[in-house]
Amino acid sequence: DHKLKIFSLNSNEPLAKEVAEDIGVPLGACSVNRFSDGEVQINIEESIRGCDVFVIQSTSAPVNENLMELLIMVDALKRASARTINVVMPYYGYARQDRKARAREPITAKLVANLLETAGAHRVIALDLHAPQIQGFFDIPIDHLVAVPILSDYFKEKNIPGEELVIVSPDHGGVTRARKMADRLKAPIAIIDKRRPRPNVAEVMNIVGNVEGKKAILIDDIIDTAGTITIAANALVENGATEVYACCTHPVLSGPAIERIDNSKIKELVITNSINLPEDRQSEKIKELSVAPLLADAIVRVFENKSVSTLFN
Amino acid sequence: DHKLKIFSLNSNEPLAKEVAEDIGVPLGACSVNRFSDGEVQINIEESIRGCDVFVIQSTSAPVNENLMELLIMVDALKRASARTINVVMPYYGYARQDRKARAREPITAKLVANLLETAGAHRVIALDLHAPQIQGFFDIPIDHLVAVPILSDYFKEKNIPGEELVIVSPDHGGVTRARKMADRLKAPIAIIDKRRPRPNVAEVMNIVGNVEGKKAILIDDIIDTAGTITIAANALVENGATEVYACCTHPVLSGPAIERIDNSKIKELVITNSINLPEDRQSEKIKELSVAPLLADAIVRVFENKSVSTLFN
Ligand SMILES: Nc1ncnc2c1ncn2[C@@H]1O[C@H](COP(=O)(O)O)[C@@H](O)[C@H]1O
Ligand SMILES: Nc1ncnc2c1ncn2[C@@H]1O[C@H](COP(=O)(O)O)[C@@H](O)[C@H]1O
Repeated sequence: DHKLKIFSLNSNEPLAKEVAEDIGVPLGACSVNRFSDGEVQINIEESIRGCDVFVIQSTSAPVNENLMELLIMVDALKRASARTINVVMPYYGYARQDRKARAREPITAKLVANLLETAGAHRVIALDLHAPQIQGFFDIPIDHLVAVPILSDYFKEKNIPGEELVIVSPDHGGVTRARKMADRLKAPIAIIDKRRPRPNVAEVMNIVGNVEGKKAILIDDIIDTAGTITIAANALVENGATEVYACCTHPVLSGPAIERIDNSKIKELVITNSINLPEDRQSEKIKELSVAPLLADAIVRVFENKSVSTLFN
Repeated sequence: DHKLKIFSLNSNEPLAKEVAEDIGVPLGACSVNRFSDGEVQINIEESIRGCDVFVIQSTSAPVNENLMELLIMVDALKRASARTINVVMPYYGYARQDRKARAREPITAKLVANLLETAGAHRVIALDLHAPQIQGFFDIPIDHLVAVPILSDYFKEKNIPGEELVIVSPDHGGVTRARKMADRLKAPIAIIDKRRPRPNVAEVMNIVGNVEGKKAILIDDIIDTAGTITIAANALVENGATEVYACCTHPVLSGPAIERIDNSKIKELVITNSINLPEDRQSEKIKELSVAPLLADAIVRVFENKSVSTLFN
């Protein structure tokens, strides 16, 4: 009988450990280091011949290091005769480069999909891809999990009646996500409707929907430099919202993000551990929820050939 | 009629500029930067539709950054309708991971070849690959240039009679290279024959060949931490060599390399500019030769559909 093995690379070991504990298997023995010149050196320290192997790696910053670790690990597993190689990417880097928005742009999200297949991945488990269309970039099976239930459940515990709440999408692209959370919290939605009246004229921040006297929850998939979300929070307060919460699946939080959040009208920022935040990117306003049980469940279902689709909504 | 375009990425712009000047074309306009979260952002700023494009990039340190820049650039060129995409890699990173030396090792040099093809490269021009077998890792044409003539010509100008010289390979793997240089300088060869008599016993440094009273030139493809080459230099002096020179194509020079060279018996280290040395990796002992004319010649020949094989020896 073949065996389940879980390996962690360097981007998010705390999450990988939690997943392995949830499933009740030890993390596979391997060292992922660098040679003196910075090249990735991988040493798989136990046999994985004939096993179903799951490699957990978020391609968060440093994205190119983490992606290359993943590709090289998949190559090593392939050559070591793994039965199946399942790549678990709680955060999929380069997801925003998913189309040619301008002439002569790369479509790096598609390139990454091709690179993973070329290296030898048999299946991908991803979480809240920036665009669900990225699933179609793969010719191998991909399971696409969503964190809206985890984020929603956290807010449910605050016991705020739905009619006192409003779920807000910070842009047009995120309305479907806001709608899903609103359903779970039995609340209405609103949309921040940014537009530029003429070129080189400041953007106008219009709010579609009623936020007056309500507690607002902003929801996004990624919060990166936190410019959009903090400006949106301030606009909500100016329009009469009494409290503003924000939440996202992927806390990229690069550059001025933490400072902006600390100085904003956001009362609490709820994130998941899809990305492991370094010590210099913490804030007292941040509440972290774990996606480990979700990933553990998906891994076990894949291993047991059961449907993962119940984890999609 | 289609056009020749040359683009440089970030790893070795001085070399790319020299190559473009030698050929007499301007470098193509493009910016290769990073988004706030560290993801590669590429902007090709001129049309390359229908052109024969040559991208110059050494995958030296930071190797993963430089390799991802290259893959993303190739993806962008492909989607921008380049007629052919020719990847010029003066230094091919991960070349030493070219076989499974131990169980469960990746073969990253092969993975890199696959990744380049997947991204859309049509041809590769490489220089002194760590093993010539890496050519076989590609299913696309690869031109393999060698720098031995450039290094040899430099020493020829010192006008040392061949019988006063000895060309030394620092290990068994490099004897063919030493032989090629010896032919050009009409000199004999010697080999540093390291072996470990028993496990956990210090290596014995034996010299095969006569170095007594001679000026020795150590030749290698890569000098990385410079451990091997500096120990070899000292052994040569102990065995009666009157002067020791060292040369290599690829000056990786990581970690303690510069310190070791400065403190060694090596009189002069001759390198090429296949890798762009940062300011903190310089030494007064180092003499840099340019491979730009060699690369320029190869690029023009490929563009004009002429044989490159005359540049191989
Ligand atoms: N890492 C990144 N950081 C900021 N912007 C990005 C990044 N990657 C891609 N983009 C840009 O963001 C846009 C896509 O974002 P969106 O409209 O939210 O899907 C594209 O036009 C990309 O050029
Ligand atoms: N970047 C690197 N730095 C040091 N050693 C390496 C590197 N990449 C691969 N190796 C090891 O070097 C050996 C190959 O070197 P060689 O025997 O000179 O061909 C292999 O056993 C590799 O594990």
